[in-house]
Amino acid sequence: MSVGTYKIIELVGSSAVSWEDAAKNAVATASKTLRDLRIAEVKELDLKIEEGKVVAYRARLHLSFKYMEKE
Amino acid sequence: MSVGTYKIIELVGSSAVSWEDAAKNAVATASKTLRDLRIAEVKELDLKIEEGKVVAYRARLHLSFKYMEKE
Amino acid sequence: MSVGTYKIIELVGSSAVSWEDAAKNAVATASKTLRDLRIAEVKELDLKIEEGKVVAYRARLHLSFKYMEKE
Amino acid sequence: MSVGTYKIIELVGSSAVSWEDAAKNAVATASKTLRDLRIAEVKELDLKIEEGKVVAYRARLHLSFKYMEKE
Amino acid sequence: MSVGTYKIIELVGSSAVSWEDAAKNAVATASKTLRDLRIAEVKELDLKIEEGKVVAYRARLHLSFKYMEKE
Amino acid sequence: MSVGTYKIIELVGSSAVSWEDAAKNAVATASKTLRDLRIAEVKELDLKIEEGKVVAYRARLHLSFKYMEKE
Amino acid sequence: MSVGTYKIIELVGSSAVSWEDAAKNAVATASKTLRDLRIAEVKELDLKIEEGKVVAYRARLHLSFKYMEKE
Amino acid sequence: MSVGTYKIIELVGSSAVSWEDAAKNAVATASKTLRDLRIAEVKELDLKIEEGKVVAYRARLHLSFKYMEKE
Amino acid sequence: MSVGTYKIIELVGSSAVSWEDAAKNAVATASKTLRDLRIAEVKELDLKIEEGKVVAYRARLHLSFKYMEKE
Amino acid sequence: MSVGTYKIIELVGSSAVSWEDAAKNAVATASKTLRDLRIAEVKELDLKIEEGKVVAYRARLHLSFKYMEKE
Amino acid sequence: MSVGTYKIIELVGSSAVSWEDAAKNAVATASKTLRDLRIAEVKELDLKIEEGKVVAYRARLHLSFKYMEKE
Amino acid sequence: MSVGTYKIIELVGSSAVSWEDAAKNAVATASKTLRDLRIAEVKELDLKIEEGKVVAYRARLHLSFKYMEKE
Repeated sequence: MSVGTYKIIELVGSSAVSWEDAAKNAVATASKTLRDLRIAEVKELDLKIEEGKVVAYRARLHLSFKYMEKE
Repeated sequence: MSVGTYKIIELVGSSAVSWEDAAKNAVATASKTLRDLRIAEVKELDLKIEEGKVVAYRARLHLSFKYMEKE
Repeated sequence: MSVGTYKIIELVGSSAVSWEDAAKNAVATASKTLRDLRIAEVKELDLKIEEGKVVAYRARLHLSFKYMEKE
Repeated sequence: MSVGTYKIIELVGSSAVSWEDAAKNAVATASKTLRDLRIAEVKELDLKIEEGKVVAYRARLHLSFKYMEKE
Repeated sequence: MSVGTYKIIELVGSSAVSWEDAAKNAVATASKTLRDLRIAEVKELDLKIEEGKVVAYRARLHLSFKYMEKE
Repeated sequence: MSVGTYKIIELVGSSAVSWEDAAKNAVATASKTLRDLRIAEVKELDLKIEEGKVVAYRARLHLSFKYMEKE
Repeated sequence: MSVGTYKIIELVGSSAVSWEDAAKNAVATASKTLRDLRIAEVKELDLKIEEGKVVAYRARLHLSFKYMEKE
Repeated sequence: MSVGTYKIIELVGSSAVSWEDAAKNAVATASKTLRDLRIAEVKELDLKIEEGKVVAYRARLHLSFKYMEKE
Repeated sequence: MSVGTYKIIELVGSSAVSWEDAAKNAVATASKTLRDLRIAEVKELDLKIEEGKVVAYRARLHLSFKYMEKE
Repeated sequence: MSVGTYKIIELVGSSAVSWEDAAKNAVATASKTLRDLRIAEVKELDLKIEEGKVVAYRARLHLSFKYMEKE
Repeated sequence: MSVGTYKIIELVGSSAVSWEDAAKNAVATASKTLRDLRIAEVKELDLKIEEGKVVAYRARLHLSFKYMEKE
Repeated sequence: MSVGTYKIIELVGSSAVSWEDAAKNAVATASKTLRDLRIAEVKELDLKIEEGKVVAYRARLHLSFKYMEKE
């Protein structure tokens, strides 16, 4: 008997402030259309640099949510 | 010349019985809407435990299928 | 403040000619429906062999593009 | 504010029957003394062979549980 | 000649605020009973999500400390 | 002083029933000609799918056995 | 029931022209004596350099083929 | 035709405050002498602990910049 | 039926002489209190350097032993 | 007795044509100032995409050469 | 044009003395029948322990040699 | 506030005697020009073989030292 299937997608969030904020931005965007988000695993963190300064923190996430058959 | 493009998605199937059953559940759910499924690679196996007992076997799969342009 | 969220999908392109061509085929297929493709990372390369001859070069790619909320 | 610390230990369970049974055996042993077991991730699976026959299925698990300060 | 043996354990700390705070919580809990903590390596970072919002930052750490023979 | 050299080969076993059975099939085939098989480590598990159904469980194994100089 | 056992060997092909050609050379050599070659996965690519110039492209492949019991 | 060669170096930045600050410190130091810094990938995060307290956050970065031939 | 559960712990041994000696030191320390040690896998080797000289060889080991329920 | 020390640096070469050309460009740039280049291992391959088209093939290389003390 | 194909096999050597000796034993055994051995990469090191003492150092090697078509 | 930035370089040391000696040779060479060397992590060990005999032990190291801005 199945107890539910989850799908995992990979998103990259971005922020001028911190990696926590970058991750939160990606989750906020995803939660507008995806239901039952559970966990986001961090796969990579990086920094974008311009003119010798850090301009963005980026977090690559694996985000799991309830799989919808129509998807 | 292209001989076809495939897409790979990541699903987590679950079962109270076995990892084979967990994987089959994920494939059964996916096959309702995706055409030309070929191979599912196991990426992770885990166990959910409640009150000291195994209550679910879970299998995280990479599932490949024919890429549809409208997707 | 968010500076945009990207999504990463995994595609396998194929070609009778070369891995560059296999990758280009996957990108060409994806670009018909996805906007703002940026980078495709090669995750795996392999060869399909029939009767002792290489019949296809395949490239598995992680392709990043602007995340659309309706998706 | 902390919302709880978990510890992860690594166990190898064994069974003459299946990897599911090997994992269950390790969980059963651990649950005699550890409280609040949550998840067991499979790290490795192997087989012990004697005289050309499989005599044991073994599963190496990362098992998480509530961290007790006295431990 | 030995110059000391260290043990490494794996802990998961949690926080509603940040990954730094999650790591500090795990270290604070461990330091109540373990002596001579030196370094904590981050093995994984993830996020717990409820109703579309990040409710916890979690950090999985490998924590090294002086090995006590009685342990 | 040497205490014996072992060789490790990589085999893929297959079964319509389970991954345990797939692994046992590979071991049974190998044990017809190789002496002193010891351990088989699972390197990958996957599933072959046809018409939306799982038709084979496959297990990729690293199989170690006593190295024979004539080999 | 077994549906066939495959063996995987590791070869390094080499070419002055390209990695595709290096892989093809390894497959051509292997296909003289091995039957039922199916897939070659690329494990590593490298370059040999002499006097500041690339003199060879090399591809390390995992090549799978039908396992023969006499082998 | 070449469109520019980049070099990647590995730095470890340190901070008493956060991993973001540790990364920014490493970038600030590097940007005094290196031109055209683009991206810094986080390879490892760790914590230095003294007397049971976190005293430094450290971030190991792979930092890419325009390759200068004289270097 | 279970055929015994093993636990794996991670230790770092150290020596001024060699990595073999570092590993032996860790095993010697562990064997004072742990029963039925079987195998120690090397996870990492490193060197401590002072004033331009190697002052210690260190070996990080995964050490498996019979799991005791009271532990 | 030492038989020579080598250094390994990481470069990213780029080309509009192929990954072989990208790698050759990086080697050509490096060979202007570094002596005794031996081997370049491919660490990553990727593609830069603009307006749905591949505009650059990039190869990240680990390049080994004779270590000069003044460096 | 091909410039030669190499094969890579995996051996585990063993010694009561050191990992260097374990590796040399495996190479010595292999060199009795294989021609043109070039390089042996260390894949894993471990220790066998009996009654709390190290009784064997083992080295798992990937050994490359000239591929013979009859093989 | 920064508490110092470190750089990590990759060296390959070589010796006819042992891996410890190979590592020491690389450290000795590096310490002639680099200040404040701290730790060298072993990334790979291999063996060079000629006429069936081991002729060199090689150790690939990641060596960390105080980052100098002029570098």
